[in-house]
Amino acid sequence: MSLKEALHWRSATKSYNGKVIEKEKIEQILEAIRLAPSSSGLQPFKVLVITNKELRGKLQPIAFQQPQIVEASHILVFAAWDEYTPERVDSFFEFSNKVRNLPSSATDDYRLNLLEMLDQKTKDQHFMNTSQQTYIALGFGLLAAADLKIDATPLEGFDNKAVDDLLNLPEKGLKSSVMMALGYKDEENDWWGKLERVRRSNEDLFIELN
Amino acid sequence: MSLKEALHWRSATKSYNGKVIEKEKIEQILEAIRLAPSSSGLQPFKVLVITNKELRGKLQPIAFQQPQIVEASHILVFAAWDEYTPERVDSFFEFSNKVRNLPSSATDDYRLNLLEMLDQKTKDQHFMNTSQQTYIALGFGLLAAADLKIDATPLEGFDNKAVDDLLNLPEKGLKSSVMMALGYKDEENDWWGKLERVRRSNEDLFIELN
Repeated sequence: MSLKEALHWRSATKSYNGKVIEKEKIEQILEAIRLAPSSSGLQPFKVLVITNKELRGKLQPIAFQQPQIVEASHILVFAAWDEYTPERVDSFFEFSNKVRNLPSSATDDYRLNLLEMLDQKTKDQHFMNTSQQTYIALGFGLLAAADLKIDATPLEGFDNKAVDDLLNLPEKGLKSSVMMALGYKDEENDWWGKLERVRRSNEDLFIELN
Repeated sequence: MSLKEALHWRSATKSYNGKVIEKEKIEQILEAIRLAPSSSGLQPFKVLVITNKELRGKLQPIAFQQPQIVEASHILVFAAWDEYTPERVDSFFEFSNKVRNLPSSATDDYRLNLLEMLDQKTKDQHFMNTSQQTYIALGFGLLAAADLKIDATPLEGFDNKAVDDLLNLPEKGLKSSVMMALGYKDEENDWWGKLERVRRSNEDLFIELN
């Protein structure tokens, strides 16, 4: 469908029917997430793609019992780097220069400047930034899902610390940022999708400075 | 174009030719931003849509002299609520219930629960969340621009405090979160767009838990 149609078609699905998403469709959604831009291109996160029922059963009670966690076809957990370390940053530029067939010196000025700026920030500030990058990817994933008429829900309501522990994120230097449920809505029980959409007016949301 | 084409077409434009975006196209991009989802639907931010040249001249030095600030057609500044206050939250639900023709009691349980959860968080945690919401909207805006073959750049490199002061954000209870340049690229000088795109492999980015 057109992007405009996708924007109007989507809503935060509250109830899923358990139907599994076709392989090529989930691949297209993940590809949109993979192609989303990020700060300096670092993609400072991993995305856990969870179908395992047992794990989702353990996830639900630490996510306010939200039904989507177990009803949806897939749960994505965006887990952001807990901090930008020189090793992570250097490793990215090494990879990037290899893809582009450039010598490492090509990005040295940029990389060293970036490291210097990051060094002036706290670990919490680093995570705030890495987490923000996952929200761009979330946005891309939501639109890619709508484009394929796959229902989706952005999910923020969970106990971050408990989710981190359940998914062994600390040992990977990661922290949970946001989740996304994907699947097919249970039309009968998706009360939310039946409500009129509420959005602020242009006059309320935008401030023009001409 | 298709969403897949838009995903591959876009890149973070480094140099613009100054050409102004057609009115109906900028309106479509803003509409995608307006329709982006947010936590509890609150849309806890404003978007400053800046074309004013003088103001952009003042913005550039506090944004690492990035050329896009003055070369692009439009600069959007996403300014997030500095905190979730009961007044802001209540006012949203009042608006929402009015749109949906519901009595205020319809959302009382949800609203009071939300206020209680927010009350347990710090002002910094509030801003982290309101800022994250602007990144979903940024993602929607980037894809909407690409869909119209409008070039765009997400911009994080700026002095937040100085930008807040220049744009009088504190008096509005807002803080700068992220910016977005929009326009038409200067093909000759857009060196970045000519480089091969670098993205992590599926194996690196995704962790499947089946």
